[in-house]
Amino acid sequence: MTTELLAASIRPPSAARAEDIRRHLDDLTKPPGSLGRIEDLACRLAGILGDPPPPLFPRTVVVLAGDHGVTTRGVSAYPPEVTGQMCRNIADGGAAVSVLARVVGADVVVADFGVRRPVDHPGVLDRNVARGTADLSVEPALSPEAVERAVIAGAALVGQFAPAARLIAVGEMGIGNSTAASGVTAALLRCPVSAVVGPGTGVGRDGLERKRDALRSALRRVAAGASPLRVLAEVGGAELAGLVGVVLATAERGRPVVLDGFISTAAALVAARLAPAVTGYLFASHRSTEPGHALQLEALGLDPILDLGLRLGEGSGAALALPMLDAAGALLREMATFSDAGVSR
Amino acid sequence: MTTELLAASIRPPSAARAEDIRRHLDDLTKPPGSLGRIEDLACRLAGILGDPPPPLFPRTVVVLAGDHGVTTRGVSAYPPEVTGQMCRNIADGGAAVSVLARVVGADVVVADFGVRRPVDHPGVLDRNVARGTADLSVEPALSPEAVERAVIAGAALVGQFAPAARLIAVGEMGIGNSTAASGVTAALLRCPVSAVVGPGTGVGRDGLERKRDALRSALRRVAAGASPLRVLAEVGGAELAGLVGVVLATAERGRPVVLDGFISTAAALVAARLAPAVTGYLFASHRSTEPGHALQLEALGLDPILDLGLRLGEGSGAALALPMLDAAGALLREMATFSDAGVSR
Repeated sequence: MTTELLAASIRPPSAARAEDIRRHLDDLTKPPGSLGRIEDLACRLAGILGDPPPPLFPRTVVVLAGDHGVTTRGVSAYPPEVTGQMCRNIADGGAAVSVLARVVGADVVVADFGVRRPVDHPGVLDRNVARGTADLSVEPALSPEAVERAVIAGAALVGQFAPAARLIAVGEMGIGNSTAASGVTAALLRCPVSAVVGPGTGVGRDGLERKRDALRSALRRVAAGASPLRVLAEVGGAELAGLVGVVLATAERGRPVVLDGFISTAAALVAARLAPAVTGYLFASHRSTEPGHALQLEALGLDPILDLGLRLGEGSGAALALPMLDAAGALLREMATFSDAGVSR
Repeated sequence: MTTELLAASIRPPSAARAEDIRRHLDDLTKPPGSLGRIEDLACRLAGILGDPPPPLFPRTVVVLAGDHGVTTRGVSAYPPEVTGQMCRNIADGGAAVSVLARVVGADVVVADFGVRRPVDHPGVLDRNVARGTADLSVEPALSPEAVERAVIAGAALVGQFAPAARLIAVGEMGIGNSTAASGVTAALLRCPVSAVVGPGTGVGRDGLERKRDALRSALRRVAAGASPLRVLAEVGGAELAGLVGVVLATAERGRPVVLDGFISTAAALVAARLAPAVTGYLFASHRSTEPGHALQLEALGLDPILDLGLRLGEGSGAALALPMLDAAGALLREMATFSDAGVSR
């Protein structure tokens, strides 16, 4: 399998026609449209999985991790060793995403795609393609070969660890990866660094300026019209490339993909450039506080489900939003119609 | 028991101090504040139920129903017989709130507080205090005695049907009750009818004008400074009065109350006027599309959890928001601290 072949095999959702689903929704015992955006979610789910959609179990949150050479430029509030430490914490069940996944009944798969030092934990899958990226401000973050290997390894995870999953939620862990995601977003959307870059998990004002400077240097190497995979190699990261594979493989299987925040949506942007039909499978779980997230969502035509000021990552927001999708599906499966219930219209 | 005695017995939450809870949150393996408003929910829950709060099970959605004489003025898109029909549908498990409560693992209690004709269904509790209200545009909707009986009957439901509930969510069913809730809101907040009235579950432009006219007539009878119970009698409804009792009794038991939309928040407004300490127990589940809802939330100092364009009622939004509270509590119970997990700060 290659990324190119995988991308070419993705078809848009077509399990149920939008007008049939909308008619079904309007026949249920409620004023038409009165469940607002839950009804839009129901429509999209039924379009992907059939009307009514089945219960969204089992389900898996796939969390990919990688380190970033650009952290030597002081772009993050945390030291790089936190990436590996947090991988172990996720596997041990103590991280936010571990807790939130339990609350919503999702499995968690956590994998090292580019952590600097071996994570060495039985609960963390070793899919390492690079011991951290190079410093993107001075050279390409990854080789094209490492990008390709990461995409394919990400795609393979879906079949290996979530073959029966009714949906996949995605997340990431990587000190410095909001810099990489900003670079990918600015390059693909051709928008200025200043419009995209935010504080990530909490870098201060000086760090923010260093983040912008690093990216301005990096993006001089990326010509307009550079391929999405080239952009990933220049300014991306191994966990971003892996997530591109997860998104592509899930869409190829005809299953919904629930994005987390800014980082995972950058990966989705790459996936959608490789295979535009991917967007039909994407759900934006929440509106991140990171400024570039709104630009990504607009480019993908996605309306986020939650707006809670989240900026953690790990897949935490994606896990949190799953009950809203459960609710949307259950309404189509279980609500009575006006005629069944003997209710006047 | 009287409403007055019940209101006087409510104390503000004091299970855990806000600064202790915030310190606990900041010691968990995540950047401080990175879970945004989920952290605020965690703080409030822990303040009510202790830090960490216990799992929020069992829990009950209490749905109270009543009819409204003002429907003869053409203020609703639906005929009044729908109130009783929907009570049966809720009890039979086919209504939106029935489905959503199942999704989130909540019981549903549905009770007739003021339905015009006997509901006559074994799953619908009979707490009827009035066979529909009088037409509020020409006379008081309810007698003061009926209001008092409804409040006390509502309060009693909590102990009778949800004695072990860790939280109570509230909802309502009543064709015409957005007119009553608008009247209560305009009277208590001393704001113009035009700022409060909206289309409810979907009345057209002419119906909206009739709704405003009916309320302008009614509110001429309500002097500035009228007592909250007097306001309920003049322009309220039996299900609204019952919900006031549910809110008061739940707060008195030191348990969180999750409000639904515009109608249940009108009841909360009355409860908070009777006992200001009630606000410490209230959670606003979502931002309704009804224009008066924002005014109510501001008056109560509440920030809604979801913003999904809901306008159904029944407690549907309250049920939908429960997983966000589950998540908030679980983070405090289950997340690792930096030192436990060996993660660098």
